[in-house]
Amino acid sequence: MASSPLSCSASDLYPLLGDGANATAAAEFICGRFEAISNKFVDTRYAVDSTYLLFSAYLVFAMQLGFAMLCAGSVRAKNTMNIMLTNVLDAAAGGLFYYTFGFALACGSPSNGFIGQHFFGLSKFSSPSFDYAVAGITSGSIAERTQFVAYLVYSSFLTGLVYPIVSHWFWSADGWASPARAENLLFGSGVIDFAGSGVVHLVGAVAGLWGALIEGPRIGRFDHAGRAVTLRGHSGTLVVLGTFLLWFGWYGFNPGSFINISKSYERTAVTTTLAGYTAALTTLFGKRLLAGHWNVTDVCNGLLGGFAAITGGCSVVDPWAAVLCGFVSAWVLIGCNKLAEKLHYDDPLEATQLHGGCGSWGIIFTALFAKEAYVNEVYPGQPGRPYGLFMGGGARLLAAHIVQILVIVAWVSVTMQKKRWQEWT
Amino acid sequence: MASSPLSCSASDLYPLLGDGANATAAAEFICGRFEAISNKFVDTRYAVDSTYLLFSAYLVFAMQLGFAMLCAGSVRAKNTMNIMLTNVLDAAAGGLFYYTFGFALACGSPSNGFIGQHFFGLSKFSSPSFDYAVAGITSGSIAERTQFVAYLVYSSFLTGLVYPIVSHWFWSADGWASPARAENLLFGSGVIDFAGSGVVHLVGAVAGLWGALIEGPRIGRFDHAGRAVTLRGHSGTLVVLGTFLLWFGWYGFNPGSFINISKSYERTAVTTTLAGYTAALTTLFGKRLLAGHWNVTDVCNGLLGGFAAITGGCSVVDPWAAVLCGFVSAWVLIGCNKLAEKLHYDDPLEATQLHGGCGSWGIIFTALFAKEAYVNEVYPGQPGRPYGLFMGGGARLLAAHIVQILVIVAWVSVTMQKKRWQEWT
Amino acid sequence: MASSPLSCSASDLYPLLGDGANATAAAEFICGRFEAISNKFVDTRYAVDSTYLLFSAYLVFAMQLGFAMLCAGSVRAKNTMNIMLTNVLDAAAGGLFYYTFGFALACGSPSNGFIGQHFFGLSKFSSPSFDYAVAGITSGSIAERTQFVAYLVYSSFLTGLVYPIVSHWFWSADGWASPARAENLLFGSGVIDFAGSGVVHLVGAVAGLWGALIEGPRIGRFDHAGRAVTLRGHSGTLVVLGTFLLWFGWYGFNPGSFINISKSYERTAVTTTLAGYTAALTTLFGKRLLAGHWNVTDVCNGLLGGFAAITGGCSVVDPWAAVLCGFVSAWVLIGCNKLAEKLHYDDPLEATQLHGGCGSWGIIFTALFAKEAYVNEVYPGQPGRPYGLFMGGGARLLAAHIVQILVIVAWVSVTMQKKRWQEWT
Repeated sequence: MASSPLSCSASDLYPLLGDGANATAAAEFICGRFEAISNKFVDTRYAVDSTYLLFSAYLVFAMQLGFAMLCAGSVRAKNTMNIMLTNVLDAAAGGLFYYTFGFALACGSPSNGFIGQHFFGLSKFSSPSFDYAVAGITSGSIAERTQFVAYLVYSSFLTGLVYPIVSHWFWSADGWASPARAENLLFGSGVIDFAGSGVVHLVGAVAGLWGALIEGPRIGRFDHAGRAVTLRGHSGTLVVLGTFLLWFGWYGFNPGSFINISKSYERTAVTTTLAGYTAALTTLFGKRLLAGHWNVTDVCNGLLGGFAAITGGCSVVDPWAAVLCGFVSAWVLIGCNKLAEKLHYDDPLEATQLHGGCGSWGIIFTALFAKEAYVNEVYPGQPGRPYGLFMGGGARLLAAHIVQILVIVAWVSVTMQKKRWQEWT
Repeated sequence: MASSPLSCSASDLYPLLGDGANATAAAEFICGRFEAISNKFVDTRYAVDSTYLLFSAYLVFAMQLGFAMLCAGSVRAKNTMNIMLTNVLDAAAGGLFYYTFGFALACGSPSNGFIGQHFFGLSKFSSPSFDYAVAGITSGSIAERTQFVAYLVYSSFLTGLVYPIVSHWFWSADGWASPARAENLLFGSGVIDFAGSGVVHLVGAVAGLWGALIEGPRIGRFDHAGRAVTLRGHSGTLVVLGTFLLWFGWYGFNPGSFINISKSYERTAVTTTLAGYTAALTTLFGKRLLAGHWNVTDVCNGLLGGFAAITGGCSVVDPWAAVLCGFVSAWVLIGCNKLAEKLHYDDPLEATQLHGGCGSWGIIFTALFAKEAYVNEVYPGQPGRPYGLFMGGGARLLAAHIVQILVIVAWVSVTMQKKRWQEWT
Repeated sequence: MASSPLSCSASDLYPLLGDGANATAAAEFICGRFEAISNKFVDTRYAVDSTYLLFSAYLVFAMQLGFAMLCAGSVRAKNTMNIMLTNVLDAAAGGLFYYTFGFALACGSPSNGFIGQHFFGLSKFSSPSFDYAVAGITSGSIAERTQFVAYLVYSSFLTGLVYPIVSHWFWSADGWASPARAENLLFGSGVIDFAGSGVVHLVGAVAGLWGALIEGPRIGRFDHAGRAVTLRGHSGTLVVLGTFLLWFGWYGFNPGSFINISKSYERTAVTTTLAGYTAALTTLFGKRLLAGHWNVTDVCNGLLGGFAAITGGCSVVDPWAAVLCGFVSAWVLIGCNKLAEKLHYDDPLEATQLHGGCGSWGIIFTALFAKEAYVNEVYPGQPGRPYGLFMGGGARLLAAHIVQILVIVAWVSVTMQKKRWQEWT
């Protein structure tokens, strides 16, 4: 019999039908229709998947607006126009650059394990959207003190070169750390970073860290005695607006990272939601205990931290694990903020702490809680592959994920380092 | 012949094909393909419906942002952060609570007519979104004068317990007032509350009413002589932004309440739009006649009132009836506001008047104008069921709907009453 | 054999199967299933296309919010409420009017080439959305100096009568300038205005031009010596918010103009994006060179100008051409603004310059760069039809497009002219 379950070849059918020439014609007749049906299903599926992907990409696009509003609200009024200029330009310049250079690097053919051929799990449409996210994270870290042209060059280099190469390593079918290679998986496992706790959030955070170190703290952020002084953003309303838009966009980001619709994407929407909710509530009550007041900005940052953490494992963990992910993520964020203050590191949007700290926690979390059945469902064709340590899947996934953190920090630090960029600022 | 029109069993086909063993094989061959095609259609339909539902749920999510912006703009500047904190938390706390407790109540198995098993006409994804709406309505009524923790407890109780039970009564297949029970429909009819004029809007409004009565009017809202003093919100721009986002979200709410895509959902989008438009224009010109000035906030509230009214019957009425619904709804809102002022009831967002008044009108409206053909299309399998009184369908639907109003007011008043909650505030 | 590739008639099959009565039954059995499958595909396709169209329409709806925020941010604080009132009402009044009058004109049956029967390439759902866009453009031109009632009448006349007739001419299958007529195409070609550089943008711009001329410049816009004085909008943040929302909506507008999903719509999303990006960057750097400073409002207007220009040809040009389109569009906008200042024409949102100037350039651009393969793909069934002049397709498309510009300017000017409306203001 023919291999496709929907169509058939007439030569299989006509011996079965019986007598001579008529049977041949009958078989051709019938199988011709099955063939047409089979093709029609391909077309239909294409239409469904395209609709799904396109609207997911539009949701991710809402993130760019979210970044702009979040940044605008988080800075002092005098710096609003400047930071929004960088945000609008990020979308435009990053997008154009990506189309011309980055796309060739990440998806160009021919390819090796370093610079790549095809995306895995990402359509060419959603890719530039991920790009925005990386640049948006970085722009938060260096808000209120960057020359516009310097930022433009820094951002273009990040989104046009540094990020596409990382995304190739972890997401392309032949990337050296991809979970979808045919063979020679890293530690027999590859890195499971579904929608980018590492590839997007950690990359953006490390680039933002170097940017913030180049610029130094804002004037007045630490007083003469070295005590931190809060420089409050000028509009909490804009912070809430931006956070909600990012939240909205995350549903395009995480569930939208499936290239076609499967039952897993419902789980992905649920885990994403639960991690964010839990982190928001934990941050609110945690900060209430520690600082003695209720604060809407804390809730917003906690929520975003929870999302950053669940992004990598959203498709391969259970809802209860997502709740745990969000809970820990809130404390990671609180801890990173304490540490930043102690080290006199100034990041007006807490971007490095949030995306770097919670993103790194998310990478580790996935290595601990990825469930066997889900891993095999999302990354099929490799029976016996490692999964979460705490789920009985061994330590090889954790080893691969620790390598991911080290490699991303090293690569982004080397390319975006202080010395290379200091001349621009 | 086999019952499914797409697939077939080989035993039906091979006697027809003729001679012996070959015919059996041919029949199996052909029917195997039909079987595969039939399964493929199920998968495809699942993908289409999931995409539709998921993106509808995302639209409803925009409502939460809309509530936050509407509330922020409608209160005085000093109260902005406080009300937005309640809005962000509503989403998070309400959502978490719903997942853990509410979901089990509304959808848990086993079930009886009071506490339930399965939602009717609602996927598990859109449900928490409806939840937001209930809490959002309530938060408007008690804006500018509520302690944060008190609100959090009040809201969690509402969305985690009070609302899920109401939604079970009217929307679950075995709820006592459901229009989709197999037998023993209330008045032979059940309540037609498609997307929740009663289940969502009236519930939220009654809870808000009790909250506002507990808190009392804002200081300065009525002067020593008892005359009303307008305490204007601080930003009309935010009110417009919030209204548009709610408008946007309503398209997820009303047409999105179909669990799969049917031709009815286009009618639903049209009736929703027309009712809102008409109510907005009627309110604008009505208030111009009565108060002598044009006011953008009036248009916004009129629009939302029209939407609240059409929500229950949006899928079962004609476009011309929707226009009528919006027209009356505008006058209901104007009347309720006059009444509230006379009774010294203070609701900063007119939430009780808008969602309670227009929601109740919507419940009555549906009982008057529901069209036979549409009712049978949306709630199939019960030939001869009652429909709108003015459409010749008798008074039984109206009776059921009056029961709905009474029951909701009673249930929410008992559970959310003043005495029970006064200790918290 | 039957013409449909999916279904079949039993009379074709049973002679092929062989012996007597059984063969007839077998053929009926098999073909009955093929028939059912064929019908099921129609249903499925309907569901997919409806989902696609509905969500595209919702995106376009975001444009109305975008207009409101853009206008609010672009005017001085004292005029915020007034302009938002016009924006909210535009949606409501325009929508109601369109449903009652415009829809009959554009789509009513019977029809001739002037007043029409069926839309081509537009569902009845997305049509009112296009309507919003026309009114939104106009409201920008006359911002800050219009009486509310005068605007309402002006806008209703525009969206209820003037625009539907234009859209019929160019988009209806029997419009005299439609590219989809069966015969007697204008210049053997018809006008290719896919999503409305002419039908939407130029119409709105010309109506806005007349409105602005009726009102005259804002007081203080030009000093006693006739020099232009910048009257800065009160909130750049709202301008950015509005621009992003319009950007978001454009993806519903341009790719959403396909009535069913095809591979062309991906090209449409890409060309739209590239034209906007390029125009934004070109305007930013161009104004930096000319005026000496970086300005976020310029980037926003440049972006929107690029979108207005690509709207007409988005589905029939290559990505590289879209980049060119955006580049030229930026200079067209800069030039039109210089000209407007010289002529003492005051348009607070640069709406006439942006939608009229860049829209006209887009009409010409399409006539120059439309690619043969894409034109035949999007407007099939007319082999050998003209395409872009620079792509080797001859000058007939250009001739038709020049006629489009002249006819739109003439028709809108005649109907919306100064004299007719002056009594209202």
